[in-house]
Amino acid sequence: MASTTAGKIIRCKAAVAWEAGKPLVIEEVEVAPPQANEVRIKILFTSLCHTDVYFWEAKGQTPLFPRIFGHEAGGIVESVGEGVTDLKPGDHVLPVFTGECKECDHCKSEESNMCDLLRINTDRGVMLNDGKSRFSINGQPIYHFVGTSTFSEYTVVHVGCLAKINPTAPLDKVCVLSCGISTGLGATLNVAKPSKGSSVAVFGLGAVGLAAAEGARLAGASRIIGVDLNSKRFPEAKKFGVTEFVNPKDYDMPVQEVIAEMTGGGVDRSVECTGSVSAMISAFECVHDGWGVAVLVGVPNKDDAFKTHPINVLNEKTLKGTFFGNYKPRSDLPSVVEMYMNKELELEKFITHEVPFTEINKAFEYMLKGESLRCIIRMTP
Amino acid sequence: MASTTAGKIIRCKAAVAWEAGKPLVIEEVEVAPPQANEVRIKILFTSLCHTDVYFWEAKGQTPLFPRIFGHEAGGIVESVGEGVTDLKPGDHVLPVFTGECKECDHCKSEESNMCDLLRINTDRGVMLNDGKSRFSINGQPIYHFVGTSTFSEYTVVHVGCLAKINPTAPLDKVCVLSCGISTGLGATLNVAKPSKGSSVAVFGLGAVGLAAAEGARLAGASRIIGVDLNSKRFPEAKKFGVTEFVNPKDYDMPVQEVIAEMTGGGVDRSVECTGSVSAMISAFECVHDGWGVAVLVGVPNKDDAFKTHPINVLNEKTLKGTFFGNYKPRSDLPSVVEMYMNKELELEKFITHEVPFTEINKAFEYMLKGESLRCIIRMTP
Ligand SMILES: NC(=O)c1ccc[n+]([C@@H]2O[C@H](COP(=O)([O-])OP(=O)(O)OC[C@H]3O[C@@H](n4cnc5c(N)ncnc54)[C@H](O)[C@@H]3O)[C@@H](O)[C@H]2O)c1
Ligand SMILES: NC(=O)c1ccc[n+]([C@@H]2O[C@H](COP(=O)([O-])OP(=O)(O)OC[C@H]3O[C@@H](n4cnc5c(N)ncnc54)[C@H](O)[C@@H]3O)[C@@H](O)[C@H]2O)c1
Ligand SMILES: [Zn+2]
Ligand SMILES: [Zn+2]
Ligand SMILES: [Zn+2]
Ligand SMILES: [Zn+2]
Repeated sequence: MASTTAGKIIRCKAAVAWEAGKPLVIEEVEVAPPQANEVRIKILFTSLCHTDVYFWEAKGQTPLFPRIFGHEAGGIVESVGEGVTDLKPGDHVLPVFTGECKECDHCKSEESNMCDLLRINTDRGVMLNDGKSRFSINGQPIYHFVGTSTFSEYTVVHVGCLAKINPTAPLDKVCVLSCGISTGLGATLNVAKPSKGSSVAVFGLGAVGLAAAEGARLAGASRIIGVDLNSKRFPEAKKFGVTEFVNPKDYDMPVQEVIAEMTGGGVDRSVECTGSVSAMISAFECVHDGWGVAVLVGVPNKDDAFKTHPINVLNEKTLKGTFFGNYKPRSDLPSVVEMYMNKELELEKFITHEVPFTEINKAFEYMLKGESLRCIIRMTP
Repeated sequence: MASTTAGKIIRCKAAVAWEAGKPLVIEEVEVAPPQANEVRIKILFTSLCHTDVYFWEAKGQTPLFPRIFGHEAGGIVESVGEGVTDLKPGDHVLPVFTGECKECDHCKSEESNMCDLLRINTDRGVMLNDGKSRFSINGQPIYHFVGTSTFSEYTVVHVGCLAKINPTAPLDKVCVLSCGISTGLGATLNVAKPSKGSSVAVFGLGAVGLAAAEGARLAGASRIIGVDLNSKRFPEAKKFGVTEFVNPKDYDMPVQEVIAEMTGGGVDRSVECTGSVSAMISAFECVHDGWGVAVLVGVPNKDDAFKTHPINVLNEKTLKGTFFGNYKPRSDLPSVVEMYMNKELELEKFITHEVPFTEINKAFEYMLKGESLRCIIRMTP
């Protein structure tokens, strides 16, 4: 399948963020052809994640504008650059904000997915190969975001950041596996690894936390305790297998003590998906001594300190953290898509909204109001 | 082998601590027969551990005197109480400060050794069965210490705190496996689990840390980095497989950064055996992101806080703690004795001194001066 556009600049629509916090503007952009180890893909569906909103608001980071956000998506390869042998035009792919070069110590390690070459970099707005952007408007470069920039009909991505998936998988569903859902799911399945019949506490019932709960459900946990400061999250969480709820605001004592009382000493596993350092500490302290494992997923603030009495560690509680649910994007993501295809993993319940590309700013509104879990953005009318 | 003393009070010599910090006094004590689930044993060899010294000094704890200290020892069963079926007179045993009831959730868990019933209790000076002491002098009760009180020719121990070992094992050597050596060894072999060819940092080169290094050597680690504030520990540590040394005092930067530089990003595993919370933090932060595992062994002070930026956790470093090296005393200790019998594990190098029972206070002096690793106390002349 030879593409007629290969090697040429593509002119297409992209949602450009010109300034921090200002609505995106759909513009006609020029997308340069892929260079060595790069792939140009046509995005069919993309979805919005908090990380897009966070860097669009640019509070507390160095702002980099104009920029094309977006990092959860499903697309089809249009053309490939020099040296790309793993992918060819027509392949279905999920772009991922972190990559897998397959050559560094991390990629060679069975335990790590923190590739030295392609690990997430939120400050870089250009491609690795030449330090330049592939996007421009009338010659003005528009910056990339985490190597994906999926709020564009076409984008250029490093081959190491693309998972080749089953071409029969519906991209409007599996696109949500590019980031948050896989992160929560993997945190439970790959890192916390609850055994059948065990108890799991999930802190934070946003999309990531609900995916962690979905992982606990798949693993056969018998008690899944959802913890959130916002009780509005509770009714929805039932669909994700959460069996009990705790709102820390309802108690006079620390939530770790509430959970210890509910479970006769602590849960077997906990997964923290809030980004709040106090929730991280509670998530660690609420696991059972002797065998409990706590997994941190939330991204903390720069000056946060995780603080606990070391006796909690000596009492044989384990503290772990994970990045993208410990999935290696190219090696592991295709099998997560298969879990959906085999009807083990349910994705529909994460998708609460859908908008056409022209209304992408609505997706931001839904998320900012806390109304949506995932809003799918349809690129083609 | 029927014992003529079974069921009767035994009069024998014990080293009694009458007051905090004062030399022990060898006294004639009466040792009552074992009650239900108890075993009376004749101690042949005992050794001195920091924990004895710590509670003898009674700084910062509620003092409990008069008391018989001692918890590293080797002995022979003299008689057994009602309900004891696992042991019989003549069996060779190691008493352990923590037990294994084989019935609680911890004992049933493959991961934990923190038995609910027999977990270490440093405040209790009496036996569980009747809340009374088995030791007395002219009717005055003398308190037990961590259920072992091995500084006595005879002592009474709960059956759950006795490991039955190979009767051909030399008790003057394997007695050191009752506490510190197994703790350090197990911290590495059971918890840190370094793979062959990996790098391991050991913080603190006392007996526990050297045993952790010995574990790393047995596991085939290729780099064993010893870290201690006291450079005098370094020459000796070479015998335990330590290949490189770092004295944090020799550097202007935090030791975790020194180790990161030495190893291209961090060690694969670290084991902290100091009790210093700053060493615990360094031990955690010096492991490699993606796969590093840090294991805490040292007993912290009451008000210590373990403090780190949560990003260290999210970067896929794991923090674990261990108690008695995760060994279950009854189930696992016999096989550690076998490791010695098979000449895999070397114990001789831990034993730096030996004294007769009458000179037990010398063992305290050697330890307080930092001259000894382990001093064996010979009970019979
Ligand atoms: N590690 C990774 O690879 C990765 C990837 C994606 C997202 N994340 C992080 O995961 C976290 C969750 O993401 P999300 O999209 O689900 O966010 P979200 O904002 O939708 O959900 C977070 C939930 O946590 C709750 N919460 C906040 N503080 C709390 C506290 N102290 N106790 C209990 N609940 C509390 C909020 O009420 C909210 O419902 C974020 O920190 C995000 O940055 C990490
Ligand atoms: N978890 C358990 O089951 C268990 C069992 C026995 C002992 N322990 C603990 O293990 C620890 C070590 O015991 P030990 O008998 O080997 O003690 P030790 O005093 O002989 O050795 C400790 C060593 O740590 C060094 N040190 C102290 N602070 C340091 C720092 N900040 N950085 C580097 N080195 C430092 C000292 O110089 C010393 O050489 C103690 O805290 C003890 O209570 C735990
Ligand atoms: Zn890599
Ligand atoms: Zn995301
Ligand atoms: Zn038990
Ligand atoms: Zn000890």
